[in-house]
Amino acid sequence: MEQRRLRIGVAGLGRAFSLMLPTFLQDPRVQLVAACDPREEARQQFAADFGARTYADVLDLAGDPDVEVIYVASPHQFHAQHTEIAAANGKHVLVEKPMALNAADCDRMIAACRAANVHLIVGHCHSFDTPYLRTRELIRSGDFGAVKMIQAFNYTDYLYRPRRPEELMTAEGGGAVFSQAAHQVDIVRMLAGSRATRLRASVGRWDSKRPTEGAYSALIWFENGAYASLSYSGYGHFNSDEWMGWIGEMGDHANPDAYGGARRRLATLSSSNDEAQLKAAGTYGGAAYKPPSTAADEPTRCHQHFGPVIVACEHADLRPLPDSIIVYGDQQRETLPLSRPTVPRGEVIDELYEAVIAGQAPLHDGKWAKGTLEICIAILKSSETGKDVAL
Amino acid sequence: MEQRRLRIGVAGLGRAFSLMLPTFLQDPRVQLVAACDPREEARQQFAADFGARTYADVLDLAGDPDVEVIYVASPHQFHAQHTEIAAANGKHVLVEKPMALNAADCDRMIAACRAANVHLIVGHCHSFDTPYLRTRELIRSGDFGAVKMIQAFNYTDYLYRPRRPEELMTAEGGGAVFSQAAHQVDIVRMLAGSRATRLRASVGRWDSKRPTEGAYSALIWFENGAYASLSYSGYGHFNSDEWMGWIGEMGDHANPDAYGGARRRLATLSSSNDEAQLKAAGTYGGAAYKPPSTAADEPTRCHQHFGPVIVACEHADLRPLPDSIIVYGDQQRETLPLSRPTVPRGEVIDELYEAVIAGQAPLHDGKWAKGTLEICIAILKSSETGKDVAL
Ligand SMILES: NC(=O)c1ccc[n+]([C@@H]2O[C@H](COP(=O)([O-])OP(=O)(O)OC[C@H]3O[C@@H](n4cnc5c(N)ncnc54)[C@H](O)[C@@H]3O)[C@@H](O)[C@H]2O)c1
Ligand SMILES: NC(=O)c1ccc[n+]([C@@H]2O[C@H](COP(=O)([O-])OP(=O)(O)OC[C@H]3O[C@@H](n4cnc5c(N)ncnc54)[C@H](O)[C@@H]3O)[C@@H](O)[C@H]2O)c1
Repeated sequence: MEQRRLRIGVAGLGRAFSLMLPTFLQDPRVQLVAACDPREEARQQFAADFGARTYADVLDLAGDPDVEVIYVASPHQFHAQHTEIAAANGKHVLVEKPMALNAADCDRMIAACRAANVHLIVGHCHSFDTPYLRTRELIRSGDFGAVKMIQAFNYTDYLYRPRRPEELMTAEGGGAVFSQAAHQVDIVRMLAGSRATRLRASVGRWDSKRPTEGAYSALIWFENGAYASLSYSGYGHFNSDEWMGWIGEMGDHANPDAYGGARRRLATLSSSNDEAQLKAAGTYGGAAYKPPSTAADEPTRCHQHFGPVIVACEHADLRPLPDSIIVYGDQQRETLPLSRPTVPRGEVIDELYEAVIAGQAPLHDGKWAKGTLEICIAILKSSETGKDVAL
Repeated sequence: MEQRRLRIGVAGLGRAFSLMLPTFLQDPRVQLVAACDPREEARQQFAADFGARTYADVLDLAGDPDVEVIYVASPHQFHAQHTEIAAANGKHVLVEKPMALNAADCDRMIAACRAANVHLIVGHCHSFDTPYLRTRELIRSGDFGAVKMIQAFNYTDYLYRPRRPEELMTAEGGGAVFSQAAHQVDIVRMLAGSRATRLRASVGRWDSKRPTEGAYSALIWFENGAYASLSYSGYGHFNSDEWMGWIGEMGDHANPDAYGGARRRLATLSSSNDEAQLKAAGTYGGAAYKPPSTAADEPTRCHQHFGPVIVACEHADLRPLPDSIIVYGDQQRETLPLSRPTVPRGEVIDELYEAVIAGQAPLHDGKWAKGTLEICIAILKSSETGKDVAL
């Protein structure tokens, strides 16, 4: 008997979509049936690739009776509105991180989905990655005692990837806190397994040409007594993939000898308009778009990740890696291998499918994701006020 | 012409002394001429090894007219008193970290040395290690712009090494903050190159059998706008030497396959008294003491270190390693090799010799070290009060 496929309509055919595309292509539990995007070239490519319906406007996508789930992958500032439109039309919603730009929008999204009796899942986010989910299970087994201290850091070239102008303006949701802490905080909360109660943070903005946060450090305290130290730099210098066996964020084999590519590419551009065009050109439907590889490297592909994380429990440090979890116990060190991912980001479809088909409450629901957004906003606030923020 | 040798008297022939012994043996600028220790077996070994005078009491050592410098390597709680006694007898002082247990004692030590017109140097401390000193010089060159963010962490088995009872009691100066933050904070301050103005921290105590701090995380802000994130765990699980090329704290080649030795050794003991005896047995003069190797491995020995450190400047991340400094610049990544240490911890003698012989003001003077102690105490206070501490 063939598995029933969830019929997905995509709102926003940009980079986020192109990162989820391998999942949609390879996972037998879903199929792409429609999409909307203001960019005509993206619509044309989608129509050609999937023989599927395309729309310029999300309202039309939401009105498509064949669509069951809308994947909201439009820019941050549209997440709330697009979710409400989807819900009002009875569609389940998978919305990209960050959920929205403020808590009030999150509340509206949650209320709209509840009123329409549809599921709301926020993702992809790297807290869906199997190494973290499996580490969470190990912690919940109780075998290692309570979580006491979490260390999470990530050094990337985030700030120098091609951006739309608003991605470089904090007030519009730009910067490393909205875009990257959204992942890291989510991972840390999930591993802490308890409500965050307060935090203290400092953000870094030190390239006046890209005047948003490129870095941050934060201390977060949890109700169960655990605390976490998070640090992020997107300034394109040190690359912490070195400490993940040179496996990149997408589970790919990173080249240890490659250096400085993002900055070099950017240096060839003369304006922010050029930069937005470069971003669009490289994305779905764009002139320089490369479709996801049909997988010569798939057999050695690892799990995705968001940088080194070490969870100190009373009786072991747990270290999620792209291919294993290392348990540094009181007596011995043990490597628990993880089987390779069959479908990249299949974990997102696991949650979506179980919710829609079996009615199982998702881990990454609206309330959960609102908690992460509140922490991200508190990181900005603590840095600005120079004080703890109570959560 | 032979170099004049500084004549050193040692107060306290324990573990700290045994770690400095290779330096005293190999550096032609110093010689050991006397020592004091209440432990008779230590005195006997010292007399046998150096044909030198020994005393049970520091007053007698300080009265020895042949001694020019007293190296105070007694337990923390004696540092202030022993420094005052040395100064009162006109001896220069090299005192182990932490300088003392409170700021008032530091002031007394500084005043005593100033009044006697003798130098006061606090060390060994890992901020003397060449990789950090050289990184400091690179920063001061201005080539990489201002320091913006520092990341320092270290995961060791500190808490499970054999201890005297007071080393496990915070009120007596025990625990990772007094003993280990003393290194890490000193390194971070030196690299920040600016006065620390405030901090927020959290400490971890999660083994009730060793009821002092085994871990901490801290955020520190500096006058020049830089901030630092520090984390330490001494709980003997993950070992961050992995990120230093498996070079250990002492510049030795660590064995990546060794695991859990400290905990296992401790598990064979039945009381804290046994533990103190085990510590004493393994130290200078003890039954299980092993003298420093006469250096089969010396040709491959690297610089000492205190865990991974990344200094983010405006235009480069700098990463001090035991054999090099990696500069992750805007355009390229460059490895600056460091020549191998000729004498381990020779940097301590550099400062001491230059001060005593050439009158050059040491970097690690009393005022400097007091600043580090104040930060360590503020880490404890911030964790306890749940607030920032202004410095
Ligand atoms: N989870 C991840 O790994 C990941 C990665 C990248 C982006 N994201 C998230 O995805 C979202 C989009 O970011 P991106 O990098 O893909 O941006 P992008 O600019 O690459 O893509 C956005 C797409 O949305 C389209 N769009 C704009 N307005 C629209 C509208 N009103 N209706 C429908 N489509 C519209 C644009 O034409 C573009 O094709 C952001 O919220 C971002 O945080 C997540
Ligand atoms: N820089 C480093 O790498 C490092 C390493 C270890 C210890 N230390 C510091 O050195 C100091 C000593 O620690 P340790 O680990 O060597 O302890 P330890 O117990 O191994 O040695 C202390 C020694 O001092 C002797 N002693 C006790 N009371 C004395 C007194 N009144 N007068 C003279 N000697 C006395 C003891 O008998 C013992 O031999 C501490 O402040 C510690 O923080 C520094």
